[in-house]
Amino acid sequence: MMIRFYNARILTMEEGMPMVEGELWVKDERIAYVGEKKDTEGVTFDQEIDCEGNVLMPGFKNAHTHSGMTAMRSFADDMPLQEWLNTKIFPLEAKMTGQDNYDLTQLAILEYLTSGVTAIFDMYLSPEDIARACIDMGMRCVLVSGLNNFGPALEVMEERYLKLNGMHPLISYFMGVHAEYTCSKELLEQVSELIHKYKAPLWTHMSETKREVDECVERYGMTPPQLFDSLGLFDFGGGGYHCVHFDEKDMELFREKGLYVVTNPGSNTKLASGVAPVAEYLRRGIPVAIGTDGPSSNNCLDMFREMFLVTGLAKLRQKDASAVDGDEVLKMACVNGAKAMGLHDADFLAEGKLADIIMIDLHQPNMQPLNKISKNIVYSGSKQNVKMTMINGKILYFDGKFLCCENPEAIYEKANEIIARLSAE
Amino acid sequence: MMIRFYNARILTMEEGMPMVEGELWVKDERIAYVGEKKDTEGVTFDQEIDCEGNVLMPGFKNAHTHSGMTAMRSFADDMPLQEWLNTKIFPLEAKMTGQDNYDLTQLAILEYLTSGVTAIFDMYLSPEDIARACIDMGMRCVLVSGLNNFGPALEVMEERYLKLNGMHPLISYFMGVHAEYTCSKELLEQVSELIHKYKAPLWTHMSETKREVDECVERYGMTPPQLFDSLGLFDFGGGGYHCVHFDEKDMELFREKGLYVVTNPGSNTKLASGVAPVAEYLRRGIPVAIGTDGPSSNNCLDMFREMFLVTGLAKLRQKDASAVDGDEVLKMACVNGAKAMGLHDADFLAEGKLADIIMIDLHQPNMQPLNKISKNIVYSGSKQNVKMTMINGKILYFDGKFLCCENPEAIYEKANEIIARLSAE
Repeated sequence: MMIRFYNARILTMEEGMPMVEGELWVKDERIAYVGEKKDTEGVTFDQEIDCEGNVLMPGFKNAHTHSGMTAMRSFADDMPLQEWLNTKIFPLEAKMTGQDNYDLTQLAILEYLTSGVTAIFDMYLSPEDIARACIDMGMRCVLVSGLNNFGPALEVMEERYLKLNGMHPLISYFMGVHAEYTCSKELLEQVSELIHKYKAPLWTHMSETKREVDECVERYGMTPPQLFDSLGLFDFGGGGYHCVHFDEKDMELFREKGLYVVTNPGSNTKLASGVAPVAEYLRRGIPVAIGTDGPSSNNCLDMFREMFLVTGLAKLRQKDASAVDGDEVLKMACVNGAKAMGLHDADFLAEGKLADIIMIDLHQPNMQPLNKISKNIVYSGSKQNVKMTMINGKILYFDGKFLCCENPEAIYEKANEIIARLSAE
Repeated sequence: MMIRFYNARILTMEEGMPMVEGELWVKDERIAYVGEKKDTEGVTFDQEIDCEGNVLMPGFKNAHTHSGMTAMRSFADDMPLQEWLNTKIFPLEAKMTGQDNYDLTQLAILEYLTSGVTAIFDMYLSPEDIARACIDMGMRCVLVSGLNNFGPALEVMEERYLKLNGMHPLISYFMGVHAEYTCSKELLEQVSELIHKYKAPLWTHMSETKREVDECVERYGMTPPQLFDSLGLFDFGGGGYHCVHFDEKDMELFREKGLYVVTNPGSNTKLASGVAPVAEYLRRGIPVAIGTDGPSSNNCLDMFREMFLVTGLAKLRQKDASAVDGDEVLKMACVNGAKAMGLHDADFLAEGKLADIIMIDLHQPNMQPLNKISKNIVYSGSKQNVKMTMINGKILYFDGKFLCCENPEAIYEKANEIIARLSAE
């Protein structure tokens, strides 16, 4: 399968943010050529697409989400965090089946495609069902365990680690725990053994709320990052989701170990968790990626909103309009996300890289004039500008049409049926 | 001209947020019927539109903008406020012609339509040119003077007040001053005389930055709201744009006089000006409306982003996820904006009201499931959900197509030409 995109502006996202005017060829699941207009004689293309001057760039990596929570979107907003979790979310999740998770993940995938997301880092119930939904629709998915005291045992995580890695080119699996406050010390110690057995990185929700940090310090005399480090959990890398309430020592530890921060500003805002010190992470050279968190706490899966919030909230926090340059944010969304997720061939556009590509429509008023296209994407871009989303060489979304499934309406209907059933007494 | 919308969910935005399933008829520029399915026998419609279960609601009112600043979108981001204004914005504005303002306002109008904005409150150069652009495209526009020490004289404001009010059904004009820090006390006193002569409300940028407030207190021993009140400038109502740094006394004054706060969270975030105390305004019963501010400081004209920021930033400021309910925000965007702008017939959908109506597409993944549609609009809605924008009974935007102008590309080209000319040495 050969696809040729021509008449394009190509933001490869390589160092220096070059913008190449020319064309891009895709052969099967990889990029075969990126550069100036090229002689096509003797080459047979299955499809040739005139980009009309629009931008091709690497897709966004949603580096933290719980896709299956789509059922609970707008189910319970404007509530205090603990009440929301305990009275609204947990009771419903307890009733959710594997098939529900599959159906609800499919709904989330449709939304990712409209937002130019080409890979997700998903921590939720029954990863096998998430994987199935992603394979069926063509979404690239890095699964991560949300191990805790109340769910499936450690052995299940190890089994999944061995089974899900290598099962399909779109799927990989990382070890992880839900959070310090949902895991006993014994469980964390067992996880550490497993981490060392496989020399594997570890991922976790970390320091999302001040209360979480305070309680951890009370329990262990250490913050969550320091506790995890003391147990050897970060000996092979990985990182934390949220990372809102870090002290100097936490940051130093993340820098030293090369751990990733995945920031989730939409969720941290809506749940009033606080503003992560992103400018301080960058100053120390800590790599930052971006995630939406789940659609129940955000409530949308929109990387444009997240990108604006990453820089905007940093500007407010630092009281400095020059804090966290928009171009840095674009790198977080495209490149750092890929690296955090172990997708080393999906970071930028170049020959041999994976064809996880989006097209940004510049023929829209919010993208004009073209003073600086990368800044337009971060500061005024929106889902309406996503003209195409291609994953692994397959066009899954084009001009508002889903090519990844026959009937999106059926998926909407199922989501409505599921929430009606789950929320029934 | 009679248009019938049927098979609709109608969020009238009346008290209690009723959602009517049925139809809505438009006769010329006004609503002729809202209610359940109705017998159409004997009625001739020029157009009948199947809404397919989508939402009809009043359009958003962008209650503070400077439309003509589209030229400077992404022209100079990530810069400290004063450097940005003095080295990048003011020198360019000095070279801008009336025709530039017309062309750049047209670009902004295209973007407003994609965001469901049916009326704008616009303070910028040469209001005659803004009015012309709005009339030519069908946008409803409330102009407001940005009088200051350096621009056109007081007499020009009075002339415009008399000339522009009543010139066209889409256009009205309010008196206003740019800000305390750009007006001498003598000028403010003269404005007060004019306000009293016409018993007119007054509008101004107010307490946008802490520095502005501090310098005003240094000069006059009073905050900007207190100074304006002491000069009688608020004796006939009006209000302030931004209102980020208010003290207790300022708030009490706004409450007592029934003045409006127009909040601009996108701009206040990007320029690191601070977070307005919106929850505290609401607690006191101060009416709050929402504006995008100009596209050079935001950088987009997207009421969805603003709505999320209004509630999100309030939640962060109050450290309370239940602060500023999403439904309150929707009222600010639709109803309060209309009231602030003197558009008393554009506040909600009912027989006899102006047909300033938008259709929200629910057949998109970010709107599903339909747990609570009004919350979906505020928390997960985006421009991609704006299926139609109708102003004064005319459909100006439908299914991604602009019906208000023949060639949007020509408008984009002009904007690029203008910024190239303005920024040339």
